[in-house]
Amino acid sequence: MSNSFVLVINSGSSSLKFAVIDSQTGDAIVSGLGECFGLPEAVISWKYNGEKTEEAISAPDNHHQHAINRIVDLIESLGFTSDLVAVGHRIVHGGEKFTSTVRIDDKVLTEIESLSDLAPLHNPAGAKGIKAAMVAFPSLPQFAVFDTAFHQSMPKKAFTGAISNELYTDYGIRRYGFHGTSHYFVSREAAKMLNKPVEEASFISVHLGNGASVCAIENGESVDTSMGFTPLSGLMMGTRCGDLDPGIIEFLLKKGWSQEQVFDALNKKSGFLGVSGLTSDARGVLEAMENGHEGAKLAFEVFTYRVAKYIGSYLIPLSKLDAVIFTGGIGENALPIRREILKNLKLLGFVEDEKGNEDARFGNAGVIGKSEMLNAIAVVIPTNEEFVIAQQSVELL
Amino acid sequence: MSNSFVLVINSGSSSLKFAVIDSQTGDAIVSGLGECFGLPEAVISWKYNGEKTEEAISAPDNHHQHAINRIVDLIESLGFTSDLVAVGHRIVHGGEKFTSTVRIDDKVLTEIESLSDLAPLHNPAGAKGIKAAMVAFPSLPQFAVFDTAFHQSMPKKAFTGAISNELYTDYGIRRYGFHGTSHYFVSREAAKMLNKPVEEASFISVHLGNGASVCAIENGESVDTSMGFTPLSGLMMGTRCGDLDPGIIEFLLKKGWSQEQVFDALNKKSGFLGVSGLTSDARGVLEAMENGHEGAKLAFEVFTYRVAKYIGSYLIPLSKLDAVIFTGGIGENALPIRREILKNLKLLGFVEDEKGNEDARFGNAGVIGKSEMLNAIAVVIPTNEEFVIAQQSVELL
Repeated sequence: MSNSFVLVINSGSSSLKFAVIDSQTGDAIVSGLGECFGLPEAVISWKYNGEKTEEAISAPDNHHQHAINRIVDLIESLGFTSDLVAVGHRIVHGGEKFTSTVRIDDKVLTEIESLSDLAPLHNPAGAKGIKAAMVAFPSLPQFAVFDTAFHQSMPKKAFTGAISNELYTDYGIRRYGFHGTSHYFVSREAAKMLNKPVEEASFISVHLGNGASVCAIENGESVDTSMGFTPLSGLMMGTRCGDLDPGIIEFLLKKGWSQEQVFDALNKKSGFLGVSGLTSDARGVLEAMENGHEGAKLAFEVFTYRVAKYIGSYLIPLSKLDAVIFTGGIGENALPIRREILKNLKLLGFVEDEKGNEDARFGNAGVIGKSEMLNAIAVVIPTNEEFVIAQQSVELL
Repeated sequence: MSNSFVLVINSGSSSLKFAVIDSQTGDAIVSGLGECFGLPEAVISWKYNGEKTEEAISAPDNHHQHAINRIVDLIESLGFTSDLVAVGHRIVHGGEKFTSTVRIDDKVLTEIESLSDLAPLHNPAGAKGIKAAMVAFPSLPQFAVFDTAFHQSMPKKAFTGAISNELYTDYGIRRYGFHGTSHYFVSREAAKMLNKPVEEASFISVHLGNGASVCAIENGESVDTSMGFTPLSGLMMGTRCGDLDPGIIEFLLKKGWSQEQVFDALNKKSGFLGVSGLTSDARGVLEAMENGHEGAKLAFEVFTYRVAKYIGSYLIPLSKLDAVIFTGGIGENALPIRREILKNLKLLGFVEDEKGNEDARFGNAGVIGKSEMLNAIAVVIPTNEEFVIAQQSVELL
């Protein structure tokens, strides 16, 4: 039987992440990154068989296209061309139009571009990646997998803002949610772990990385999530503020701050970085906290407290809870953060399984606690968004 | 034994609410309202013995002073002057300075004015009322009762925003919380109902009125609350949006909306009014919903869902829960809203006491449900902020 590999592309405005994924196993055969697009320093690097290679992109412009052309040559030289069955693109915003993965044609491409109003940085970059891949792989089917699609099952009471209905009808302002591919993947894995059909399993999925979101999943479907119209809301993140009293923005604007200063502060100088006064990186915060840094300790406490409050609130849309799932860079690796969150869940009956929590330290799946009261467990499940993109592309072939 | 009546004053920028309160019983002997201050239509009205009287304020300006002078004459003509022992002022913002009720002297008055940066509409109006009362009642002691004071017991992890620490140190931006007098009062009443010292009782107090907030109370002390730096955040309200993705503000400003348009929309055209497209009044929303109005139904669902999510999240800061308390105009009177919120709390084990809930319909205190899982009840307790202001004033005499 031949392999069915999928080239997974995550195209940003000045970078392009890629991986050749075995759609059966989820293994990354090759993975790499093009970056500094638009600059003389444009470069592409990849890892294959544990070895890393880096090459300058010498062309003066159109670096997305040159990067993808280089990937074609790379795949050819490694002898995988005949194993490649599809290209899967991670696209940030599918609006209300895309509720699942789709095969890309001209109409879909136009629709992705027309959603750029909702994701002005991400969707045009995604479209650029699609176009370059269409040129480079003219005979391969291409698929778009949307960060928002999994959340399109949210009921209206969860996605409606407490604002004028005209802001929804005129501008599309509502909760969309992001990280959908990750919440989808870990909920499927958790259902397997519980030996339960996912259609009968309910979870609170906690994706903690540099970006972070929580998702309430009822019988396999997203019914609420903490990111909203944009990825700025919800949990405290590396540099993003998450939920915020809108009156603070009015106050700062009245103090003479420019709009740019305000939203730069909320997007890039808040979160772990802003509260700790030190770093946006959770590892750095944990280290500094151990050395007695007050700001780091406060950042740790505010972050874990807010995650726990979201978990408490997401019991409301569920009729039962099978598991709280921790995933993402922080969720998979930061034992003290998971421990503190579980401590915060004491009135919900959660008790840490200390051994289990320590064993899950290095990105292994495992049970880390349970609540007899809710008849639920807490688990760590490493996420794998590329695997989902590869699988869903192959399924649609 | 002589009476000890307190004149309670709530002074706004263009209005002044007042009541003569019996500090023993909480009864309002006289209550009234001056309004349209600054306009030719300035008027003062009051209720005594069930009868309402209204009088124009004919003076061309300084209507706060003229209104209070009229109150002096009114109290004199009713023969209560010798029963009056103090004047208690409701002041919105006490910042971090005021953690409890204080007797007003020149220093306190200056401090209240210096907090105007945090409450630009309310504190100057409060100070105006104090000054007018000092002129009108030169021999009576005056007291300031702060909306924020009860919440000053919040731990740092609850009052710290997920933003740059410098916004706190430079501008005082943090969670203050409001409605403190109401949350204080109903938690004391609930403890009596449970026959438990309030220092050993924990509550989630849900104040639902035109403004609305939730407060987590651990052993009698506020440990978290949904209003933040301003009263715009937290729950959806009559016309206010409550919690909002800050990215929505950035989006609207980029669309060319002025700052005034944006914050006018969030403060005055959101909440029940904005979602229903109909009215800011919960009664109107309930009526329209019964007549099949889609927007009203959505407003009802969004509102109740969000209140329930806050209740779920406020289990996190508590070590136990004795009761969920409903109060405020909506909390005391809107049976269908309480019913829907309790329904939303099903995974927390709450079951409605239908008879109890119906009996509490007309503002009576009573048990309306319980959760065996949490060993907690749900109750309605009518609030009485004026009573607290009168009591605390007399206690400090």
